[in-house]
Amino acid sequence: MRVAYNEQMNALSKILGEMAGLAGSAMERATQSLLQADLSLAESVITEYDQIAALSHQAEERAFALLALQAPVAGDLRSVVSGIQIVADVDRMGALALHVAKIARRRHPNHALPEEVNGYFAEMGRIAVALGAAAQEVLISRDPERALRLREEDEAMDDLHRHLFTVLMDRNWSHGVAAAVDVTLLGRFYERFADHAVEVGRRVVFLVTGTLPSDEDHEIDLAHGR
Amino acid sequence: MRVAYNEQMNALSKILGEMAGLAGSAMERATQSLLQADLSLAESVITEYDQIAALSHQAEERAFALLALQAPVAGDLRSVVSGIQIVADVDRMGALALHVAKIARRRHPNHALPEEVNGYFAEMGRIAVALGAAAQEVLISRDPERALRLREEDEAMDDLHRHLFTVLMDRNWSHGVAAAVDVTLLGRFYERFADHAVEVGRRVVFLVTGTLPSDEDHEIDLAHGR
Repeated sequence: MRVAYNEQMNALSKILGEMAGLAGSAMERATQSLLQADLSLAESVITEYDQIAALSHQAEERAFALLALQAPVAGDLRSVVSGIQIVADVDRMGALALHVAKIARRRHPNHALPEEVNGYFAEMGRIAVALGAAAQEVLISRDPERALRLREEDEAMDDLHRHLFTVLMDRNWSHGVAAAVDVTLLGRFYERFADHAVEVGRRVVFLVTGTLPSDEDHEIDLAHGR
Repeated sequence: MRVAYNEQMNALSKILGEMAGLAGSAMERATQSLLQADLSLAESVITEYDQIAALSHQAEERAFALLALQAPVAGDLRSVVSGIQIVADVDRMGALALHVAKIARRRHPNHALPEEVNGYFAEMGRIAVALGAAAQEVLISRDPERALRLREEDEAMDDLHRHLFTVLMDRNWSHGVAAAVDVTLLGRFYERFADHAVEVGRRVVFLVTGTLPSDEDHEIDLAHGR
């Protein structure tokens, strides 16, 4: 029983790690497609989301089979339950990369972003990709200290998002309302991507230690318009 | 065992239904606070989110205990696993109502919304509240046909959201960028609230029938800028 549980749990963790890896890669290409108005990159992200969705489905089935056939208890049960919750987060990370790519596609051959904010998105993209990689890493290593650090890394994303809003709200914004709407949504997508990576980290801490780190309100106040 | 399972599963369903009810009530008051720039209503939504978060925690613990102590199989197992997934959706519904209330509070004593779009938000609020009530209903009744109909009801939300974007993108938008940013985010919050209610419906269909309805891309393309 124990051997079967370990094998099946490892297989589940592998799928979750793979999903986080795919979501990170999708966000990397989505960011490039946005910055360079590159249609084929955007298309690749959009097409490949199906793969993440298929893995979600597979992961849920495996978690269910594990519960049904192994009836795990204590820490083992916690791992499977956390796995079910993590599926939703990594799936959402993929969907958010998809949304970014869809905006890039929609605006092609134009750039969705005014040049003035390119630097923000290049940096938000970099942080998102790093958080995706960190999520993938902790899903495999189950290192709770590393998992907790995702939250700190998310702070840089929150700072950027806040600054981006000050740029948008500035009277000197000269790019019109349509661009402001795109920038608002895109900023939100990057921030939510990062939040879900942080959430994966929290779940990993829980599955290892049995204690869920407090859920600080890491979603920044979006409406601060300073 | 069977009696204990039924009792505990009913208790879990009751908490989930209660959460959906609280989220719907929160969205109702958040919408009023937005339309009327009513600070105390906004504050009440913000304060009461803690209650939803506490129920989330309770629901997760109950689901875990159910799995650990009853080791349910087949349809019973499906119910518990679905319950774990539903917690995340109803919690998120509450968080989205909270976000709406925070924007209302931030803009107080001003109105966050230009009068021109009040009608959209009154109607989106009405649909959101109806979807919250429907989610609560199907969590208790487990009626899969009713649960499937949530998706149809969400179509009205998607239509409104689309129209709202045409208003925003119109050259005649005269309310400036800051208002456009608020309207963009608020529209997104209502739409996501509805999506999560639809997702609750899908999970209820799954837990009753064992088949998850296809996940149509009910998230509308946000960037259509027609």
